[in-house]
Amino acid sequence: MKYAFAQRTRNFESSAVRDILKVISQGNIISFAGGLPDDDLFPLAAVEEAYKRVFEGGKHTMQYGLTEGFTPLREAIADRMAVRKQIRMDAQNILLTTGSQQAIDLFARVMLNPGDIVLTENPTYLAALQVFQSYEAKVVAVDSDASGMLPEDLEEKMKTYAPKFVYVVPTFSNPRGNVWSLERREHLLRLAKKYNVIIFEDDPYGEILFDEASGYTPIAALDNGETVLYTSTFSKTVVPALRTGWVMGPYQIIRMMAQAKQAADLHSSSIDQQALYCLLRDFDLDAHIAGLRSVYKERMHVMLGQLQRLNLPGLSYVIPQGGMFFWLELHESINTKDLLPKAIEKGVAYVPGAPFYVSNPKHNTFRLNYTHSVPEKIEYGMSQLVSVLEEAYTTISIDKAMV
Amino acid sequence: MKYAFAQRTRNFESSAVRDILKVISQGNIISFAGGLPDDDLFPLAAVEEAYKRVFEGGKHTMQYGLTEGFTPLREAIADRMAVRKQIRMDAQNILLTTGSQQAIDLFARVMLNPGDIVLTENPTYLAALQVFQSYEAKVVAVDSDASGMLPEDLEEKMKTYAPKFVYVVPTFSNPRGNVWSLERREHLLRLAKKYNVIIFEDDPYGEILFDEASGYTPIAALDNGETVLYTSTFSKTVVPALRTGWVMGPYQIIRMMAQAKQAADLHSSSIDQQALYCLLRDFDLDAHIAGLRSVYKERMHVMLGQLQRLNLPGLSYVIPQGGMFFWLELHESINTKDLLPKAIEKGVAYVPGAPFYVSNPKHNTFRLNYTHSVPEKIEYGMSQLVSVLEEAYTTISIDKAMV
Repeated sequence: MKYAFAQRTRNFESSAVRDILKVISQGNIISFAGGLPDDDLFPLAAVEEAYKRVFEGGKHTMQYGLTEGFTPLREAIADRMAVRKQIRMDAQNILLTTGSQQAIDLFARVMLNPGDIVLTENPTYLAALQVFQSYEAKVVAVDSDASGMLPEDLEEKMKTYAPKFVYVVPTFSNPRGNVWSLERREHLLRLAKKYNVIIFEDDPYGEILFDEASGYTPIAALDNGETVLYTSTFSKTVVPALRTGWVMGPYQIIRMMAQAKQAADLHSSSIDQQALYCLLRDFDLDAHIAGLRSVYKERMHVMLGQLQRLNLPGLSYVIPQGGMFFWLELHESINTKDLLPKAIEKGVAYVPGAPFYVSNPKHNTFRLNYTHSVPEKIEYGMSQLVSVLEEAYTTISIDKAMV
Repeated sequence: MKYAFAQRTRNFESSAVRDILKVISQGNIISFAGGLPDDDLFPLAAVEEAYKRVFEGGKHTMQYGLTEGFTPLREAIADRMAVRKQIRMDAQNILLTTGSQQAIDLFARVMLNPGDIVLTENPTYLAALQVFQSYEAKVVAVDSDASGMLPEDLEEKMKTYAPKFVYVVPTFSNPRGNVWSLERREHLLRLAKKYNVIIFEDDPYGEILFDEASGYTPIAALDNGETVLYTSTFSKTVVPALRTGWVMGPYQIIRMMAQAKQAADLHSSSIDQQALYCLLRDFDLDAHIAGLRSVYKERMHVMLGQLQRLNLPGLSYVIPQGGMFFWLELHESINTKDLLPKAIEKGVAYVPGAPFYVSNPKHNTFRLNYTHSVPEKIEYGMSQLVSVLEEAYTTISIDKAMV
C-alpha cells in the first residue's frame, strides 16, 4: 500500500544531532555531542520522595486532570518566576507542557500559517527550526554577534518581512552558549512593540548560571505582559524524564495554546506534575541548582583548560557564563562534519555546527557539551579531540604547500 | 497588542463536553456526563510499587529517553497485543504517546492537508473531530447502524470523496457504546484495501468487556499490517494520570509519526512509561481488568434497571456489552441541551448528543456514563433524571394539545 503523507512531512528531517547520538550510543565513546545533564547529579531521593507524597494523596490524584496542568504547580511556578526572574504573571497565564519543546510546538501551531515568516538567530536551536518548518513557515535569520541580534538588521527584517514572531534563546543559547546584553534585549522588545511582533523567549538554561551575581533579565521581565511568551523547563534543573515544562504569557495566547493542547494530548502526565509540585514545596531546589552550577562550572573550566592549549589559526570561541555548551569556529577550510569520523575513531564525539544554521551554514563550526562527562573524561576526551584538530590543521598546511 | 492567530485556530472550539464538566465540577451534582473511570478502583498500591521499582533502577532512569518510547514497554505491548488481540507486530511498529489522544493528533499531522477528507461514523468521538478540524480537514459522516458503517454508503463515499483515512471506534464506541459486527469490520477492511484508504482504529474501551467469551476482533487483527493503525491506552485500565497510550501499524507511518513527535515534545514522560512497564511485568493487570469489568457491568445494569422503568414514546437505546456509555434517543421534539439545566437543577448531569455529530445532529440524543458513580448514586441520580424526562414528556403533550 502506498501512503500519501501530508505536505508538511516534506519538511520533516530526523535531527542530524539525533542521528549522531544514535551512532555514539553504540560503543565506548566520550560524547561531547548531546545536550544532556549528568545523571549522577539527579536528585533521585528527592524525586522518589516527591512521588511517595503524591501517592499519599490517595486515588483521586490519578484521575484525569486539567489541560492547563496541575493548578498548584502553576501557582508555584508563578511565584518562583516572580521572585527569581521578575516575571510577574498569574497562574492562569501559565500552561504546563510536555517539556518546553511542546511549548514551542503549541505556540507555532496557534500562530503559523504556511508561508509565514519567523525571525531567529543564526545559528539557533535545531528542534525549534524543525517545528517552524513542520508548519511550513519560512525562517529568516537575523545577523547577530555574541551580544544578540544586530539592531539594524533586526529592524530591517521586521520591516521587510512582517514576521509572525521572533524566536530567541537570549541566555546561554543552544548552540552558541552566548548571552544577550540588556541593551539588545530592550531593543528587541522595543522593536517588537513598534512592529506588532510577538517574541517567543526560550530559556531552558537560564538557571545554569555560573555567577549568580551576574543575573540576566529575561525579556519577559521587561515586558508589560503583552508581547513576550516565555518558556522554560525542569529538565535541566530537576530531571528530564519528568518532561515538564511551562510557557507563560498573554492570557489570550495561552488560552489558545491550551485549546490546541486539548486536541494534541488532553493533558501532560499529572502524576509528574504533582510530584514536581511536592518537590518544589518540600525540597530545596535552589540549593540543588547551586550545586549543579558549581559542578558544571568546574567542568566548563576543565574543557576550557584543554582548549587554551590549542594554538590554531582561526580558532575562536566565547567562554560560557552558564548553560551547557562551547561553540567553536575553526579555520574556514576545515569541515567539521568530515572531521567527525576521525574523532569518533579516536573515541570522542561532538556535533558539527552546520545543521544549526538557518542559512549560510558555517561548516567550520562545532558544539561541545561539558555537562554530561566527569572531569577525567573531559580531560581525556579533549586530549583526543585536540590531537584530531591538530592533525586536521597539519593537513591544511600540507594542502596549502601543495597548491 | 493584537494577535494574528493561525487560520487553523478558527476551527478550534472548546469542547462542549468540557464546558459542561466545568459547570458540574462546582457543586454537588451526580454526573453521568464525563467519561471517567472510577478513582476508587485505581490500583494505587500497584502503581506506587511500580514507581518504587523504577527508582530502584538508579539515576539513569531519569535521563532523556527515546522519542519512540521506553523500549521494554513497547516490547511488552507487542506481546500483550499478540496474545490478547491477535494483532501481531514488532516493537518497532509501536509508538508510545501521551494518551491515545496524541496518537490521533500525530497521525492527523502526518496525513492531513487542508481540505483532505476523513470519513467517520456519525456521531463519533468529539475530540477526534476537533483534531481533524484543527488540521483543516473536511469530515464526512458515513451512515451507520448499531453494527457499524453501512456498506453501500461507505463504498459510495470512498469512491466519491477519495478520503485520506477512515476513523472508527468499532468496539464500545464513544458516544454510542455499540459494537461493530465482524462482517462490517471485514467489509471496511476490504474496501479500504480496494480504494487505498488507511483505517485508523481507536480502541480505548476494548478491554472493558462485560462478557470475556464474546471477544471482538480488532480490525487491525484482520489486516496484514499494511492498512490499519490501531491505538489504545492504559488510561481506562490502569490510571489516566500516567497519560500513556500507544499506536501500532505500518512501520513507514509509525516512523513518520515519531518524527512528528520529536518536534511535538521530544518524548512523553519516561518515568511513567517505565512504571507501566514494571506494572505490566509484576502485577496481574488481567485480574485487575476482570475486576473492573464486573464492577462496571453491575453499574451498567443498575442504570439499565432505571431506564427500563421508563415508558416514553420514541425512547431508544442499545444495552452496552462493554465500555462506559449508554447512548439514548428521545422523542424527536425533545432537545436535550435545553433540558440539561433542568437536570442540573435536580442534581444530575449528562452530555447532550448533538456535539458528537459530524452532520445532521440529533438534538434528542444524550450520553450517560455509568463507570464513575457507585450504584447508590446511579440509583438516585437516575431517579432524578427519570423525573426530569417524564416531566419533559408531559410538556410535549401539553404543547401538542395547545397546537
